[in-house]
Amino acid sequence: MEQDPGFIAALEEAKQGASEGGVPIGACLVSRDGKILGRGHNMRVQKGSPVLHAEMSALENSGRLPASAYEGATMYTTLSPCDMCTGACILYKIKRVVIGENENFVGGEELLLNKGKQVVNLDNQECKDLMAKFMKEKPELWNEDISV
Amino acid sequence: MEQDPGFIAALEEAKQGASEGGVPIGACLVSRDGKILGRGHNMRVQKGSPVLHAEMSALENSGRLPASAYEGATMYTTLSPCDMCTGACILYKIKRVVIGENENFVGGEELLLNKGKQVVNLDNQECKDLMAKFMKEKPELWNEDISV
Repeated sequence: MEQDPGFIAALEEAKQGASEGGVPIGACLVSRDGKILGRGHNMRVQKGSPVLHAEMSALENSGRLPASAYEGATMYTTLSPCDMCTGACILYKIKRVVIGENENFVGGEELLLNKGKQVVNLDNQECKDLMAKFMKEKPELWNEDISV
Repeated sequence: MEQDPGFIAALEEAKQGASEGGVPIGACLVSRDGKILGRGHNMRVQKGSPVLHAEMSALENSGRLPASAYEGATMYTTLSPCDMCTGACILYKIKRVVIGENENFVGGEELLLNKGKQVVNLDNQECKDLMAKFMKEKPELWNEDISV
């Protein structure tokens, strides 16, 4: 699953976010039949946005879609999704959430499971290293992003 | 509480959304000491955005803030918040959610209560009329907005 185009795109987005001096989290929304609907990364720094977490950027970049487009879809994200992004996946009835890692942060995985979603943790070393470096170098930015 | 500046602003935003041909839901985020941090309305039609529900617009328009700015804050919204907006209120540790009505739609109120938030339903007739009219006139747009 680490070779899925959706995960590769999410990781590319996370690295792009890092290269821009932002929060290095990326995401990619993939339809049931494997088409990338949208991809994006956290835009807190780049757009001064408190709502454009990676998963939200991927949804935003997917544009307006009917409910049918999200049926059976997978959200790939490099980090366990926060409560906001968890809620967005529930609203849009996304079937599966594939997470790069949850060692550096655990979000709403339990709620996703309770809502009948599939949750897969890839425990990916590259995702872990990217977040650990960021959290060490910019703790204030990370705290702002998850509001602690 | 219907005379709170935050609720008045949220209702103004909902009407503005209606006048723009959009989803007529408005919201306003107010700090503990009564300052309006941000206000906004649903931007699905206006910006082609699947993430800018009213509450999300209010958060977005509040800009980047430290966690302390949200402490004790109230989110006023003209309609019961969907799962995404519920999650956003949880992420940002907003203390109280004041809802114009929940007759036309019931969102994540139970989760908010479970998370220790105060939830107040104003059962406001103007909010109810605005939504009922919209849902009757543009059912496809409404279904798209809540992904059914």
